Amino acid sequence: MTGPTGLPMRVPLPGLPAPTTRVTVYEVGARDGLQNESGVVPLAVKAELITRLLDAGLPVVEATSFVHPRWVPQLADAADLMTSLADSLGDRARDLPVLVPNERGLDRALELGQRHVAVFGSATETFARRNLNCGYDEQFAMFAPVVERALAAGVRVRGYLSMCFGDPWEGPVALERVVAAGVRLLEQGAEQLSLGDTIGVGTAGHVEALVAAFDDAGVGVDRLALHFHDTYGQALSNVQAGLRAGVRTFDASAGGLGGCPYARSATGNLATEDLLWFLDGLGVEHGVDLAAVAATSAWLADHLGRPSPSAAARALAPQATTTTIQG
Amino acid sequence: MTGPTGLPMRVPLPGLPAPTTRVTVYEVGARDGLQNESGVVPLAVKAELITRLLDAGLPVVEATSFVHPRWVPQLADAADLMTSLADSLGDRARDLPVLVPNERGLDRALELGQRHVAVFGSATETFARRNLNCGYDEQFAMFAPVVERALAAGVRVRGYLSMCFGDPWEGPVALERVVAAGVRLLEQGAEQLSLGDTIGVGTAGHVEALVAAFDDAGVGVDRLALHFHDTYGQALSNVQAGLRAGVRTFDASAGGLGGCPYARSATGNLATEDLLWFLDGLGVEHGVDLAAVAATSAWLADHLGRPSPSAAARALAPQATTTTIQG
Repeated sequence: MTGPTGLPMRVPLPGLPAPTTRVTVYEVGARDGLQNESGVVPLAVKAELITRLLDAGLPVVEATSFVHPRWVPQLADAADLMTSLADSLGDRARDLPVLVPNERGLDRALELGQRHVAVFGSATETFARRNLNCGYDEQFAMFAPVVERALAAGVRVRGYLSMCFGDPWEGPVALERVVAAGVRLLEQGAEQLSLGDTIGVGTAGHVEALVAAFDDAGVGVDRLALHFHDTYGQALSNVQAGLRAGVRTFDASAGGLGGCPYARSATGNLATEDLLWFLDGLGVEHGVDLAAVAATSAWLADHLGRPSPSAAARALAPQATTTTIQG
Repeated sequence: MTGPTGLPMRVPLPGLPAPTTRVTVYEVGARDGLQNESGVVPLAVKAELITRLLDAGLPVVEATSFVHPRWVPQLADAADLMTSLADSLGDRARDLPVLVPNERGLDRALELGQRHVAVFGSATETFARRNLNCGYDEQFAMFAPVVERALAAGVRVRGYLSMCFGDPWEGPVALERVVAAGVRLLEQGAEQLSLGDTIGVGTAGHVEALVAAFDDAGVGVDRLALHFHDTYGQALSNVQAGLRAGVRTFDASAGGLGGCPYARSATGNLATEDLLWFLDGLGVEHGVDLAAVAATSAWLADHLGRPSPSAAARALAPQATTTTIQG
């Protein structure tokens, strides 16, 4: 179920800024992962996934997105899912974050009594137009009433920012542009800003430079989260850089869900299992049961009909009884 | 062929020990990768793989292993392969490192005029018995005449050490044991010591601690190489830790060859593509053409009949023309 006995050895990373004793793993598999599935996953499977992830100890499990079903048919059951979770989990379901792209999305979330929402913006003009169907400046005009009304209703707001490390149409994205966009989301009232490397092109020095640029702009690391995709295998290395820079919240997806693992340019999220193994090795607390997450990923892989793209998830799958050795 | 235009952005990692301008990528795919294939790869494919990797600019391409064919039938053609490469590459083929487990292996390598060999030891008793069929102390007795005769013949010797971060039978391996084993190999005459995380369990703090332990024992980072497997997704993060600790030689395998990517407990090597993307992002020179390596991995994947386990290799495959985007 777990790795070889007593492994990984716990060895702290030297030179981490204090306090380094605890990290928050923000689980996005049920939303960012499943929204990229080619097929629609049944509501019962989604509900069980979220429940299992909560039972594994994940402190934050993003549940779904109230986008228009025309854009993301995979999440068209968002309201039904949250109702089902409220039935099974009770009040706890209200605290699961849900994405709301605009006021209509917020209306739906508020009707259901949700207490934690997220808006999602873009650091680039092109992706704002492609993902949100509006311009870079217009997106903030769209978010303003969403955030304002959410805060007035006592609802927590997270801000996502996409394309913080590069954009497939625009190329490299300057640090100042990312900081400018992030500061606008924070000034609108987002309590936390999740900086997304949507196409997975960033590397470790870039991560540290971006965090430092936010610090220079007066945004402390306590308000930042990092959201990495593993397109070029950089996700966990980038977490290490973020951790060294003082960030303490990292987004991850059970089993590395997100994007098809066998398509070219697959853009799966950082696997929660990879992250937990890393934190366990450093002796950084997270409160999550790695074996339970790996078992959940294995169960979901059966439902999706393909193995997890995460090496750690496969190696830790409950059925694994042997370890392959190489010379 | 490559990633989105101008990506990754070049951003140095702050605080790297100087000089950090250049890293040596030691390519092990043709040996460590192919020895773990379930089938035997034809000699012509192996020869083309090695030639393409050299043409891509890789400074060191380990070619094969002179182990007994009974133990590794995948590499039973070692002598024929080196003869074929000498025909096509000329004198250059003599400098490709080959593994020699014992004096018989060395005899075969010397007969062919090879000028760079590697011995492979274990930091643990159990793995020495399983992989070398002798005890921990006996292995050094076996290596002694190999290294002595190689050096006398003007042949360079690399020392590999397995299970430096954990052992599937013995669990965690103490730093002192690894240092003791490594120092013995170096004192026997190995010019470089490659520290292997054979089962991929190590994490970043452990890497830095091990390098520091060698330093405490008087072994400088210039004599160390790091050899990571990606079983738990830690390989590139561990390279980052090693780079920060001053190590400048990293083993990697084109496309992440090594172990079956779809078997549980897959233990593929760090993918050369992941490593090159990382170094490119940091602006660290390596002299290798990433696109040419990715094209080689795609070509080999066709021969092996399955996609590369490396996300970067898949994303960079020459056929890739689109980039998948997620919200």
